Amino acid sequence: MRLELITIGGELLLGFTIDTNAAHLARTLAEIGIEVVRRTTVGDEPESIASAVSDALDRTGAAITTGGLGPTSDDLTKPAIAALFGRGMRRDEAILGALRERWRARGLPGELPRSNEQQALIPDRARILVNRHGSAPGIWLEDDAGRWVAMLPGVPREMRGMLDDELLPMLRERAGRGVVVRSRTLRTAGVAESALADHLGDLAGGLPALPLAYLPAPEGVDLRLTVRAMAGEEADRVLADAVSRIRDRVGRFVYGEDDDDLAAIVLDLARRRNLHIAVAESCTGGLLGTRLTAVPGASDAFWGGVIAYDDSAKKRLLAVPSALLDSHGAVSAPVALAMASGARQALGTEVAVSVTGIAGPTGGTAEKPVGTVYIAVDVDGRAEAWHRHYLGDRDEIRRRSAQVALDFLRRALEVPAAP
Amino acid sequence: MRLELITIGGELLLGFTIDTNAAHLARTLAEIGIEVVRRTTVGDEPESIASAVSDALDRTGAAITTGGLGPTSDDLTKPAIAALFGRGMRRDEAILGALRERWRARGLPGELPRSNEQQALIPDRARILVNRHGSAPGIWLEDDAGRWVAMLPGVPREMRGMLDDELLPMLRERAGRGVVVRSRTLRTAGVAESALADHLGDLAGGLPALPLAYLPAPEGVDLRLTVRAMAGEEADRVLADAVSRIRDRVGRFVYGEDDDDLAAIVLDLARRRNLHIAVAESCTGGLLGTRLTAVPGASDAFWGGVIAYDDSAKKRLLAVPSALLDSHGAVSAPVALAMASGARQALGTEVAVSVTGIAGPTGGTAEKPVGTVYIAVDVDGRAEAWHRHYLGDRDEIRRRSAQVALDFLRRALEVPAAP
Repeated sequence: MRLELITIGGELLLGFTIDTNAAHLARTLAEIGIEVVRRTTVGDEPESIASAVSDALDRTGAAITTGGLGPTSDDLTKPAIAALFGRGMRRDEAILGALRERWRARGLPGELPRSNEQQALIPDRARILVNRHGSAPGIWLEDDAGRWVAMLPGVPREMRGMLDDELLPMLRERAGRGVVVRSRTLRTAGVAESALADHLGDLAGGLPALPLAYLPAPEGVDLRLTVRAMAGEEADRVLADAVSRIRDRVGRFVYGEDDDDLAAIVLDLARRRNLHIAVAESCTGGLLGTRLTAVPGASDAFWGGVIAYDDSAKKRLLAVPSALLDSHGAVSAPVALAMASGARQALGTEVAVSVTGIAGPTGGTAEKPVGTVYIAVDVDGRAEAWHRHYLGDRDEIRRRSAQVALDFLRRALEVPAAP
Repeated sequence: MRLELITIGGELLLGFTIDTNAAHLARTLAEIGIEVVRRTTVGDEPESIASAVSDALDRTGAAITTGGLGPTSDDLTKPAIAALFGRGMRRDEAILGALRERWRARGLPGELPRSNEQQALIPDRARILVNRHGSAPGIWLEDDAGRWVAMLPGVPREMRGMLDDELLPMLRERAGRGVVVRSRTLRTAGVAESALADHLGDLAGGLPALPLAYLPAPEGVDLRLTVRAMAGEEADRVLADAVSRIRDRVGRFVYGEDDDDLAAIVLDLARRRNLHIAVAESCTGGLLGTRLTAVPGASDAFWGGVIAYDDSAKKRLLAVPSALLDSHGAVSAPVALAMASGARQALGTEVAVSVTGIAGPTGGTAEKPVGTVYIAVDVDGRAEAWHRHYLGDRDEIRRRSAQVALDFLRRALEVPAAP
């Protein structure tokens, strides 16, 4: 099946918003064998919306739109496409009731505003796509020739939820079985893209049917393998073989696959050994804690920590000796070790990880330039510290430091406890 | 002047690459008064490229393409568009020489590969756009009716360089008399999009020349006003007038404009009053600290804090009484107040802000459902706590909680100190 995507919004055209919905839709649709052959972005004018949808239906007979379903006056997708299909609009009392209920449930003052009521206007003979993550319902319109348009919200979380809950099950049926695109991703931390390429260079050349993409981010480099134009079973076999060949060479840098999150892996390792984690953060300022507590259910393995941004906090809450700060400086291995040990004692945990560094843009010296970071991990008093130097801006240095700290923690927790 | 953007590449359609070029082009062109009215993404097939360009020329007479100029076999933009213009291709010896020179200068082995030579193929009667950041030259094609296409590379750095160096000077001349697009954004926190719309609904209707966009995010709703098709001075006057009318109605929710960051505003307010901030975080788990320390130079106003995720941490590090936790629960106003007070004392600061809540997806009860959040601010012992309930997933609840906590802190710091 082939279709076109139409993303709607003046903000997208003006370039104030980056269109991430289109990429997500394309990737998700590819997994069930649906090919996106064109993507169009238009503004909030009904004529532009109608002409883009009309052209798409002429070319492929199918279109998915995102955006323009909200309560404000620039949301015109529904009436524009209803008119194209020659349908009137009616008020759906069930949707209106749900909107009012939602308003009350949120404890918002007064009655549902008039501007929200237009979200209950639905084209005639439309199928409603339920929105479990927001107020704007989606719409499925189909004509007698079987040409169809699915209208999804523009807010990414709402769009993704409606796609998974409502649209994909419908499309899976229509798409039938066939050729698929599958991919697997190996996630690495603490190693540069060029170093991975050196390890894997000739291997990639030997796998011409299997494009290997290097996807660098501050948290590490993802290695993505993609196969297409194969039956599902063959695709799985080819991917599994390639993954094992790549792991043979760079497995020591791989912490997980696909959507694996390093913080969740660390929490699982701690849970399995009945250990509890504390953090002590200077330059990351809370980012390590944020990463760990982003994982639902973190509380059974993560107890908390200290954001010791100022040296006074290092002394007061982590009992880092003034003499250590004076002689080595706050950004040093001895202070990182003292912070980790102090966090363990302050929180009463078996495990702690600490980060202290210079995230910039100021504060660097010749001896300790911006990007200098010390990380320490302390498990039951067995402690180790590492020195790293990262390039990049403040945000990148902090994100990379937090990720590498989690990776050191992972490695420490994977080692069996001493007898 | 109006034009369309056409971004070319199978990777874009598959969703493996996010299209940042289009946004950059749209914003840059808007500054010189050129309006992007449609954006289309097609794959690497000559027919798709030609049809997209042809449609764009029919609608606006002008198009900019990105992508498909490289040396690999899927780069077909030039011949596809040359054919559309009825032009042949010729080899440009000067470009070929430059490509060979570049090859040698990079110290690459052997001679320039044949696949790279096709980058020296240029449509007849084309103007060449020099690429100072890569090897693929850009192309400007124009027909006798004055309809034109500019072809830029797909690599963002090369595209931006060529845009600035070559294309913008040409377009500035064509765009003529200084009509511009200007925008201003009012940033709000702690108020729903629909509530803002109710306050502003009829106002927006009275300003037809002035589109008002509502941009919701977990951190709050941005209100963006855009003027176009006016001279610069008139645009500034119209914008200033509209901003003041909007502030009259919803100013109490506005914390800043344009790129203002709420954490930076809070730090500035504290700095001005020579106050120091501490945080005590339960459900946000370090996010408040992360937000504050993301601001360069935060250390003179932010000293640190406690991530009190587990109740044991609330007791050990913030001296929250067990009796309080037992009688009210960790998610309550009394505990939020005790956390803020405890953070002030633990860190030795004048100011503290605390957050305790249920971010979900589990942990909610009938009395305290997921999304229940208590926030407290304590300034020199004068403390206040607020109860909020947020919809959304774990990430959204945490981000909204941190933002609203910063906003309460802002309001508290804006009040002059008691005499």
